[in-house]
Amino acid sequence: MAQPSSHVTAPLKDELDIVIPTIRNLDFLEQWRPFFQPYHLIIVQDGDPSRNILVPDGFDCELYNRNDVNRVLGPKSSCISFKDSACRCFGFLVSKKKYIFTIDDDCFVGKDPSGKEINALAQHIQNLLTPSTPFFFNTLYDPFREGVDFVRGYPFSLRGGVPTAISHGLWLNIPDYDAPTQLVKPLERNTRYVDAVLTIPKGTLFPMCGMNLAFDRELIGPAMYFGLMGDGQPIGRYDDMWAGWCAKVICDHLSLGVKTGLPYIWHSKASNPFVNLKKEYKGIYWQEDIIPFFQSVVLPKDCTTVQQCYLELSKLVKEKLSPVDPYFNKLGDAMVTWIEAWDLLNSPAQEPAAPVDGVKKN
Amino acid sequence: MAQPSSHVTAPLKDELDIVIPTIRNLDFLEQWRPFFQPYHLIIVQDGDPSRNILVPDGFDCELYNRNDVNRVLGPKSSCISFKDSACRCFGFLVSKKKYIFTIDDDCFVGKDPSGKEINALAQHIQNLLTPSTPFFFNTLYDPFREGVDFVRGYPFSLRGGVPTAISHGLWLNIPDYDAPTQLVKPLERNTRYVDAVLTIPKGTLFPMCGMNLAFDRELIGPAMYFGLMGDGQPIGRYDDMWAGWCAKVICDHLSLGVKTGLPYIWHSKASNPFVNLKKEYKGIYWQEDIIPFFQSVVLPKDCTTVQQCYLELSKLVKEKLSPVDPYFNKLGDAMVTWIEAWDLLNSPAQEPAAPVDGVKKN
Repeated sequence: MAQPSSHVTAPLKDELDIVIPTIRNLDFLEQWRPFFQPYHLIIVQDGDPSRNILVPDGFDCELYNRNDVNRVLGPKSSCISFKDSACRCFGFLVSKKKYIFTIDDDCFVGKDPSGKEINALAQHIQNLLTPSTPFFFNTLYDPFREGVDFVRGYPFSLRGGVPTAISHGLWLNIPDYDAPTQLVKPLERNTRYVDAVLTIPKGTLFPMCGMNLAFDRELIGPAMYFGLMGDGQPIGRYDDMWAGWCAKVICDHLSLGVKTGLPYIWHSKASNPFVNLKKEYKGIYWQEDIIPFFQSVVLPKDCTTVQQCYLELSKLVKEKLSPVDPYFNKLGDAMVTWIEAWDLLNSPAQEPAAPVDGVKKN
Repeated sequence: MAQPSSHVTAPLKDELDIVIPTIRNLDFLEQWRPFFQPYHLIIVQDGDPSRNILVPDGFDCELYNRNDVNRVLGPKSSCISFKDSACRCFGFLVSKKKYIFTIDDDCFVGKDPSGKEINALAQHIQNLLTPSTPFFFNTLYDPFREGVDFVRGYPFSLRGGVPTAISHGLWLNIPDYDAPTQLVKPLERNTRYVDAVLTIPKGTLFPMCGMNLAFDRELIGPAMYFGLMGDGQPIGRYDDMWAGWCAKVICDHLSLGVKTGLPYIWHSKASNPFVNLKKEYKGIYWQEDIIPFFQSVVLPKDCTTVQQCYLELSKLVKEKLSPVDPYFNKLGDAMVTWIEAWDLLNSPAQEPAAPVDGVKKN
């Protein structure tokens, strides 16, 4: 293992929040109890606020429903999606911790090939606390892992790496397919455990899935906006993709790292492909323009904070993508509102911030 | 598995040559017999031509020593390294096949985690016959593998992929480390079998190792020049790296793919780190300039063949790298000689070419 510039420490109990968007009971937490119970949970209730979400006993958590979102953000709550798991980013906004792990409520504990239960959170923390290597590819994958290093021909000046902003985990069982692929291959299951973590190289975009995702909120939080999706919007299931495209170009600009690979979770249930097709179909053709847009984005050198980068990106989105659909004008505005909301709740002057009054449980 | 634009067919018995540089007996072939015997072997003898190389019975092979290189290439033989495994590229030159697999004589048959012997050649062929996806990262790795596909958010217009030019395999047991890392970690062994093949994204360089490597000679052959190394040169152990940097920027320019990952071979013996340090030390500091050079190379749009690209690259090498060391002037000239030699032996007008008179065995 190469010498990382930062060290893997304790499991960051007081520095990490687990954010879960849900419309149902949180029974899935029972299986995660040994791994999650020491941490603070932020539950964002997706949809009807009158519905009662049950959290298993013994978890330290706060719960926000739509009424809470409106109360906390006032007019700025318009940037938070309703009836869509995109609402999870509200949890990123109200957290006061350095790290976030977010997971869907249909994701369970996976097992590695030896049959051992995978502590997904521990692996994400390991990924985030060791550097990334976006400028050159290491053929033996993550050089900061035990038992491996940089291979011959890897420039020594690049071996320090850069801070890791995002750790993207994968899924056993139900793969994260779009509706057309779900329809064509309803029985395909992911059974392959690829024992690797790797840095996504600078300049390369990837499809970031929000199901099993961790990030450093201080490094990249303001770029983790999941857009306008679901109720009243022309599109769904592109919330995490949007966040991934924006976050990746900003990470590239600011020399921050994005890793993908381990850990796996067990994804239990395929969502309905017919419903998904309705949500996705505009995204499927819009992305043919969106991807080249993000591939060509160049942020100005004087954008040195995530907020500055994000506001610049919002302008470019309005300018370059509104010809694709007027939706992108609205999305560009919402990106600005999101940053205003972020700064409102995360202003350095306000720290330590007053609690934002979710329903505190336990 | 996504639908590839080309199909995996028979193991290409009549379309692939195995190229092996060696200074010793080829006893290692015994272990490979079940996999290699149907194929034609090209042995390039590295060093003293009076030494007799023994090839195990039953293999169809031709052997070239330094005298053969001089006879076949005449004055152009100056571009072929002497006393260095870089001489392997002479085998690429004289082959008349579409595909090349090259392997070192200290590489043996590896085993997968189930204990099954790995047919490295079959995996390379599978890699070469299915497309690459250099323009966007697929988080479940090679989408053309059985049981997997493109994930949600992968643009449909990019799912056809591009032809694969290079398949870079890995090593169990002794990892391919540079001399400093060998010295620091003499006991480190690679025991991790990562069950993945992936495309190295466009714009990303990687350290290409020649130990276990396959490529499509028609697509990228003329870029597979292993440079001036070994006897009479100021540098060694950068032959494959040089070929990898040149080939990758040309693949990127011509929209060809480079894959890395499976197959693994068992690398039996660490080379002497003290000897390696002597060979490598100039490369270790030169590469700090070479890598930024290759990262910034832009080839002209009117370079549409590998030969044109390579000649353009040779000019840029002389112009931009000769300030680092006069060696790069010599190397730039050798790159031109290599292309002349390539065209001499591979001119379409000459086909079917006369045998170039290696020592035909068996």
